[in-house]
Amino acid sequence: MNLIELLTWRYASKKMDPSRAVPQDKVDRIIEAARLAPTSSGLQPFEIISVTNPEVRARIREIAWNQAQITDGSHLLVFAAWDNYTADRINHMFDLTNEVRGARNEGWENYRQQLLNTYPQRPAEVNFQHAARQAYIAFSAAVIAAAEEKVDATPMEGFDPDKLDEILGLRARGLRSAVILPLGYRQAEGDWLVNLTKVRRPLDQFVTEVR
Amino acid sequence: MNLIELLTWRYASKKMDPSRAVPQDKVDRIIEAARLAPTSSGLQPFEIISVTNPEVRARIREIAWNQAQITDGSHLLVFAAWDNYTADRINHMFDLTNEVRGARNEGWENYRQQLLNTYPQRPAEVNFQHAARQAYIAFSAAVIAAAEEKVDATPMEGFDPDKLDEILGLRARGLRSAVILPLGYRQAEGDWLVNLTKVRRPLDQFVTEVR
Repeated sequence: MNLIELLTWRYASKKMDPSRAVPQDKVDRIIEAARLAPTSSGLQPFEIISVTNPEVRARIREIAWNQAQITDGSHLLVFAAWDNYTADRINHMFDLTNEVRGARNEGWENYRQQLLNTYPQRPAEVNFQHAARQAYIAFSAAVIAAAEEKVDATPMEGFDPDKLDEILGLRARGLRSAVILPLGYRQAEGDWLVNLTKVRRPLDQFVTEVR
Repeated sequence: MNLIELLTWRYASKKMDPSRAVPQDKVDRIIEAARLAPTSSGLQPFEIISVTNPEVRARIREIAWNQAQITDGSHLLVFAAWDNYTADRINHMFDLTNEVRGARNEGWENYRQQLLNTYPQRPAEVNFQHAARQAYIAFSAAVIAAAEEKVDATPMEGFDPDKLDEILGLRARGLRSAVILPLGYRQAEGDWLVNLTKVRRPLDQFVTEVR
């Protein structure tokens, strides 16, 4: 399937089959797509927490409007963005880049300084919002990767982020939850959305050309 | 190519060939992928402005750190998020959904009311930030679509959003620019990044399992 077919095939499954687990190799490829996604300055300012533990997922479901996919699916991916940009975090990625590429580059070092002179000085909330946007780029890649694996994935913002941070101990790690993605297999009976037409604004309400 | 191969192939081209234009049918499929991307509550709170006009792109380049891909590429996609969630905008998407599906649904109407009772009451800035995240989901789909079309695309946040809004008259349309994506073809000579290894944090710094 090409990308447009994948995006047409996927939908936000409302009922997943609790008896079917997603094989780990499929989950690994979904996470790999997220890892390879581009981010601003290549900083990858987020992590993924892959939750399979049933008790932990039951607790998360309670603070997420009781959405059943969280426990009926087999994996819950939590995209957690950095709570702030710090000099350590920026330096880590620039050092890693130099290490992998086996070279230092003056332009790249100047760019490092430029980020060090601006990002850590901004309010933490501004930096978190910026980091969360990058997490959404990877999140989108994961949604598409799930479709390629014929795995159902339900994008979810409907949860209490502070409580999720608490359940997973994210703040102590300098992370804040941004968006979550249960993975599983659709159970058509009980899913009100599965047979409904996908709705998107028509092109003339979506794109403008400046020629 | 599968998704992981596409994400490995792509990179943020630093030098595009000004003599090669991306065929319009490829651009159309890139925009279609963005249109099909999922968004929160299906609201699609953003639009794409596709700029081919050379004078307009030259002006945008001036307020975008003089990044040459903006004028060396053939198309510049501007992802512009809604400046706010209004009752009109929410109702438009719910009405469209009812129209396309040919039915009203009580649960769906309750959900409409829930959004109407919460989103328009929030500060415009909170709503814009939320809308911008949705634009990033579509942006990511567009980046992947470009790779599938073997088109180079360079994600860019390095521009003055207020000035871009002014150049394109976005504020009058209730939009604010969030991220831009020049499309073109790489010109290997002059591109310092084309032959460098892609760097991503290793898995053990990227994913945590809660089993």
